[in-house]
Amino acid sequence: MTNLTHYSALLEKALNEEQFPATPQHLYDPLRYFMQLGGKRLRPMLSLMACKMTSGTAETALPVALAVEYFHNFSLIHDDIMDAAPLRRAQPTVHEKWNTNIAILSGDVLLVRAYDCLAQYEPVLFKALFHNFNKTATEVCEGQQMDMDFEQRTNVSEAEYIEMIRLKTSVLLGCALQMGALVGKASSENAQLLYQFGEQLGLAFQIQDDILDLYGESAQVGKQTGGDVLANKKTLLSIAAQHMANPKQLEQLALLATHPDPVLKVAQTKTLYEEIGALAYCKKRMEAYHQNALSALKNMAHKNDQNELLELANFLLNRAH
Amino acid sequence: MTNLTHYSALLEKALNEEQFPATPQHLYDPLRYFMQLGGKRLRPMLSLMACKMTSGTAETALPVALAVEYFHNFSLIHDDIMDAAPLRRAQPTVHEKWNTNIAILSGDVLLVRAYDCLAQYEPVLFKALFHNFNKTATEVCEGQQMDMDFEQRTNVSEAEYIEMIRLKTSVLLGCALQMGALVGKASSENAQLLYQFGEQLGLAFQIQDDILDLYGESAQVGKQTGGDVLANKKTLLSIAAQHMANPKQLEQLALLATHPDPVLKVAQTKTLYEEIGALAYCKKRMEAYHQNALSALKNMAHKNDQNELLELANFLLNRAH
Repeated sequence: MTNLTHYSALLEKALNEEQFPATPQHLYDPLRYFMQLGGKRLRPMLSLMACKMTSGTAETALPVALAVEYFHNFSLIHDDIMDAAPLRRAQPTVHEKWNTNIAILSGDVLLVRAYDCLAQYEPVLFKALFHNFNKTATEVCEGQQMDMDFEQRTNVSEAEYIEMIRLKTSVLLGCALQMGALVGKASSENAQLLYQFGEQLGLAFQIQDDILDLYGESAQVGKQTGGDVLANKKTLLSIAAQHMANPKQLEQLALLATHPDPVLKVAQTKTLYEEIGALAYCKKRMEAYHQNALSALKNMAHKNDQNELLELANFLLNRAH
Repeated sequence: MTNLTHYSALLEKALNEEQFPATPQHLYDPLRYFMQLGGKRLRPMLSLMACKMTSGTAETALPVALAVEYFHNFSLIHDDIMDAAPLRRAQPTVHEKWNTNIAILSGDVLLVRAYDCLAQYEPVLFKALFHNFNKTATEVCEGQQMDMDFEQRTNVSEAEYIEMIRLKTSVLLGCALQMGALVGKASSENAQLLYQFGEQLGLAFQIQDDILDLYGESAQVGKQTGGDVLANKKTLLSIAAQHMANPKQLEQLALLATHPDPVLKVAQTKTLYEEIGALAYCKKRMEAYHQNALSALKNMAHKNDQNELLELANFLLNRAH
């Protein structure tokens, strides 16, 4: 994965060169802090790869890569408030380290900054990028609202859940690729195929995330497993289990929902989901979305450097590489 | 003010035609609710007037007018959270009627919608509009942060206060005019003069607001007078009083800050500010900014329809009209 390292270095350099104003300190210090918490920088990397695939060079996509990364971090800062999350990447979240008002406002100005990055392109390209970016920004907000709504509901269908994760997570992966391709002067058809690749890969990735939260090794996941089950969070696993369970298993699910012992609750839920067939079903869905992603890539005219994207997909889906 | 009524009707029609999506309901219901609370629609009206002045027609500026109004309402929804304000235009604020998370997220999506309106222009004009809009959006966030910072500080200079209200309030008036003028194909010089008109008028208007909060008639202001004094809020009046007071008056100011009786506190502060000369000073500053605004307008090449803007300025500054 030599190229990933190269892209990563390009991005960190660009992020370091992008300075936020010194004042008002309480507006921009939180952004300096949050941006250096790091993360995989997956989304901006997708923009660079798409541009490389379509034009042979990655650097021209750096402004869209930054726009995507800033947007992603804006959404994390605001989501952390909404989820009352104390930590992000093992460090205090902005609203914890400063306060909620500062987190709202510095998030706002980061969103404005994301737009600013797009304006570095000539007008016609800028407008095309803006169109994709703005559509995606709206969808990400819609996905986050659906996620919050689902917490208050008892029944969520698989289709609703998939639409929620598509909006909340996947469309930004698609948009990152599509904008990179547009900077690389790809045809709108090819840019659209890359969008589909990202969107479908994002769905596979999110379903894997649901599975790993319960069945992963703690070390691999980077956090205690079973968190979703303990929070009675809706995931594709829980939705599929609810849908596929026989009457006796439904009773067991209902009992487990209020089980007082967290260790037993997680252990028994794991076994029950396997018995019901929900685990196998989710793995099948994940694989189907993964295959959709690969098909989109196969249909693209640009064949060079596809391996980079395939490697990244394998890396994300924990496949051998 | 026949034309104001005409512009107002144009705007309400355009706002009514702009529909938000039906779902997610908790994301878009708050926006439908908040946008119909009304308000003076001053900022979008400025865009229409500027376009009329420079091109002879107002309608082509409707998309920028909507962008400005949506942006303004986005900032109000988020500011209301930060100020923990229960009411806006005598109705519950979004975070009160729904909750803080919904207010954050629906504010976010309204900001994205504001950008969308700008994209209705051809690429070169769009990019020029975007440039002004984005700069202003950043500044408004900076102004709001300065305002929050000032609450925690004991000493704020007049220059700092003026810069805060310029960013928080005035630049958006300037931007509304400038964008309207750009849509009307004004030269950048003339658009810039209109920006100055709006910026300086905004400063005069905000200082008047400070004065009326203490010296206005309740009926005229639409709320109980003396609110700023009771909240020990920094205003140009309080800053000037602090700066101009003699040692004895400084002592009286310090005593009044912690006065237990609200009615006496307001009454005595009114008298003291007058004795110190702070009221007269603020009126002088207000008039100076008003004159700056008028000078900018005089320097413009476009002489038609200037009366509309002058009428609006007089209306805002409660002058005879």
